Amino acid sequence: MSHEEYMREALKQARYAFAEEEIPIGAVVVLDKQIIARAYNQTERLRDVTAHAEMLALTAAANHLGNKYLTDCTLYVTVEPCVMCAGASAWAQIRRVVYGADELKVGFRRHGNLLHPKAELVRGVLAEECSALMQEFFVRKRK
Amino acid sequence: MSHEEYMREALKQARYAFAEEEIPIGAVVVLDKQIIARAYNQTERLRDVTAHAEMLALTAAANHLGNKYLTDCTLYVTVEPCVMCAGASAWAQIRRVVYGADELKVGFRRHGNLLHPKAELVRGVLAEECSALMQEFFVRKRK
Repeated sequence: MSHEEYMREALKQARYAFAEEEIPIGAVVVLDKQIIARAYNQTERLRDVTAHAEMLALTAAANHLGNKYLTDCTLYVTVEPCVMCAGASAWAQIRRVVYGADELKVGFRRHGNLLHPKAELVRGVLAEECSALMQEFFVRKRK
Repeated sequence: MSHEEYMREALKQARYAFAEEEIPIGAVVVLDKQIIARAYNQTERLRDVTAHAEMLALTAAANHLGNKYLTDCTLYVTVEPCVMCAGASAWAQIRRVVYGADELKVGFRRHGNLLHPKAELVRGVLAEECSALMQEFFVRKRK
């Protein structure tokens, strides 16, 4: 599977978030070409600011592996991670982060490289679709 | 109660972590002079890098209040928060962070101010005790 195909799975998760009136961000964690965790943003439902898609996906992947280190995994997420999620991916030793749309306001990149020092970053995968979903959400919310 | 007294409660949490062979960091969240959440680092037990004392304390405080925003709360933590935890405190709109010992390697301050823009930061409360507990832990671990 290509980056695009995994990102489509993350987008599917983002649409679940959208349907539940959560900010529509989804994530999957991939190891050896297998998706080992899927999650979407649940900050409203759980009333918990830490329940971002990436955080839930990292925790689910660690539970799946029985190992808190996700060294050989790739995190796919529809929108640029925030500082919290970038920091979590570094602790988990995630070696590759692939995201869709840039997030200029609250994305981690404003603050330098907060990923694991050995991590590779891939940006812009299905960026338009990922971004369009976010825009649709905020337009609807304003109404 | 003073900063020192709340920090003693955070230190108590840190000692629980120590007893369970977790990196000894503890946190409490205070609202209107009441401690509404207490937690200690559980990354080993939960096999989850996101289970830092601060993260667990923020989630517990939000559960207690039924509100993900902790705007009028103070977070006390024995050691300078990492990027992930600083980011989480910003999302939670925590307006005051009080910590004990500086953490020069993985503390958030290396990366600028990652707390909420309106947050006040108080450093160095019971710093020596907080730091001594960490040092004792790592000395024992090396043996």
